[in-house]
Amino acid sequence: MKTRAAVAFEAKRPLEIVELDLDGPRAGEVLVEIMATGICHTDAYTLDGLDSEGLFPSVLGHEGAGIVREVGAGVTSVVPGDHVIPLYTPECRQCKSCLSGKTNLCTAIRATQGKGLMPDGTTRFSYKGQPVHHYMGCSTFSNFTVLPEIAVAKIRTDAPFRSSCYIGCGVTTGVGAVVKTARVEPGANCIVFGLGGIGLNVIQGLRMVGADMIVGVDVNPAKEEWGRRFGMTHFVDPRTVTGDLVAHLVELTGGGADYTFDCTGNTDVMRTALEACHRGWGESIIIGVAEAGREIATRPFQLVTGRVWKGSAFGGAKGRTDVPRIVDWYMSGKIEIDPMITHVLTLDEINKGFELMHAGESIRSVVVY
Amino acid sequence: MKTRAAVAFEAKRPLEIVELDLDGPRAGEVLVEIMATGICHTDAYTLDGLDSEGLFPSVLGHEGAGIVREVGAGVTSVVPGDHVIPLYTPECRQCKSCLSGKTNLCTAIRATQGKGLMPDGTTRFSYKGQPVHHYMGCSTFSNFTVLPEIAVAKIRTDAPFRSSCYIGCGVTTGVGAVVKTARVEPGANCIVFGLGGIGLNVIQGLRMVGADMIVGVDVNPAKEEWGRRFGMTHFVDPRTVTGDLVAHLVELTGGGADYTFDCTGNTDVMRTALEACHRGWGESIIIGVAEAGREIATRPFQLVTGRVWKGSAFGGAKGRTDVPRIVDWYMSGKIEIDPMITHVLTLDEINKGFELMHAGESIRSVVVY
Repeated sequence: MKTRAAVAFEAKRPLEIVELDLDGPRAGEVLVEIMATGICHTDAYTLDGLDSEGLFPSVLGHEGAGIVREVGAGVTSVVPGDHVIPLYTPECRQCKSCLSGKTNLCTAIRATQGKGLMPDGTTRFSYKGQPVHHYMGCSTFSNFTVLPEIAVAKIRTDAPFRSSCYIGCGVTTGVGAVVKTARVEPGANCIVFGLGGIGLNVIQGLRMVGADMIVGVDVNPAKEEWGRRFGMTHFVDPRTVTGDLVAHLVELTGGGADYTFDCTGNTDVMRTALEACHRGWGESIIIGVAEAGREIATRPFQLVTGRVWKGSAFGGAKGRTDVPRIVDWYMSGKIEIDPMITHVLTLDEINKGFELMHAGESIRSVVVY
Repeated sequence: MKTRAAVAFEAKRPLEIVELDLDGPRAGEVLVEIMATGICHTDAYTLDGLDSEGLFPSVLGHEGAGIVREVGAGVTSVVPGDHVIPLYTPECRQCKSCLSGKTNLCTAIRATQGKGLMPDGTTRFSYKGQPVHHYMGCSTFSNFTVLPEIAVAKIRTDAPFRSSCYIGCGVTTGVGAVVKTARVEPGANCIVFGLGGIGLNVIQGLRMVGADMIVGVDVNPAKEEWGRRFGMTHFVDPRTVTGDLVAHLVELTGGGADYTFDCTGNTDVMRTALEACHRGWGESIIIGVAEAGREIATRPFQLVTGRVWKGSAFGGAKGRTDVPRIVDWYMSGKIEIDPMITHVLTLDEINKGFELMHAGESIRSVVVY
């Protein structure tokens, strides 16, 4: 079949809207009509050529929502008509990782996914007879895409696509880091570094679980209003702090935070986030993706005196199990999404979404097909 | 009263055995006759002038066992005749840290303890009319010493002093890191870096909780026999490994360790210990004390993909609550101590104990008064 798609033919060039050939789903695969897709920093990271493992040409996009249109042989968990969110972190429920009960990082199709291929080692997309790579196992910048069955989360049919697509990455990453990775308890004092889309979702996750103090830190004072909109109780602009930022934050939180979250990807900020934790028990969660080659560092004394350094990928959420639950939280009003969708675009306008993101003008731009 | 003590008059000089004046216990304090004391690397670290906060003159020693001989006003938890282990990590049961339920790092007397003083800001020791500092709140290199009530753990009277003194630091630090900090579960695959006294206690802690694979790593092949004596199942000498040590350990443990323990204090080894953890859930515990100014570093990707970096001080054990229990474990044969006490010395021979440690000839030297 044919499908319209925004294709990344090479790094550092705008996406091109073309018509691709798309093979149907093979055994264990499903064809999904993408109804809406968010544009995420990770897409830009790859398009800008910063990901040393980025592949071209490829169909980017990993934050979508859509409808199953066809299923391959042996598919049992979804049927045509089901609403689904594609999962760049699949959940096979059979690998060592899935069975461990300790992680969401399913390894069933990791090798091929990293190479831009379906699990059988081929691509479903092609352009003028040449294969086009998949991206993060999702490729939601195509109106139709093929995914492994284990990489779709079935969700309720009354959830709007244009908001629920954001649960495919940003919402789950932020809310999940609070709920699944850190398991923040009510009454906790927390600090969130970086008030972009992920940071705001961490903030609303903290509000949902009943954190007492939710401190937002950002060098852009315009973010204060955004943070307060979702539950932030205190705002710190590091450029207005005289003296040491860590000391200021430790003072503000009465001895240090119970939990801190880095949503910046800046390794210096990651260190600050760790060291602003309370002696004895504070945990710092790294969510942001750092530039290739950058390292985090601290004195080991910080850990020996009880601070814990962790990370979170896809919010520690198991996609098929947890994503439908987060959709429920949205539909029941426990979390918000609509105010974060600052721009709605057509596929033809997708490059404008990248521009808005780079300019810091959007929280989230969504393409609606 | 008078007491014989080994005094550190200045850094980098052998201890001198002299008779000190010792004031009796004030309110909330107890006088303890030390019956035996271990000689630990931390004492050597201070004596060698490596601790920038080291104070002189002082009475070193923090790993002792003895008998309460007198109690000050208001002391209710111990009486003369009770057998006790001095605690460099006290347990007041009233401060924010103690009440948190999340840490053993009681802060009740931290400020004065760090200055070599009793909680009222004075010293009980003096020599020729000049005050002599306390050390880590313990000063077990004196035959008699005065401690805050909250810094003694009452233990059973049938435990021999010469072995139970080791529970005052090394045993609890190693076994506690397994049981309290990491909470290792039966069947876990673990790696222990550095097979000195702490490493061997980590190993026997892992044996006690039913770990499956207990890998010991040390550059001294003579340590293999010691490790196996306490439950080590595999030995790795990094100098005999061709290629990358992390890759070798990940292969050996079937994907990486569930838990790793650094008992070396070397920040490069700490990084190896983290990176040898299993993707998704492996936890690395820093026990060793690093040289001043050294930092740990890694790529944040290591944490984002599920590894956790922690530390442990005094094995995460609450002294008054957990130390008596560890004494019970020793008395019931769940853990061993006697084979680790390689040398028993008199107080006059104490400097020989430091020499044996520096030469790597002892696991633990104990001074019996």
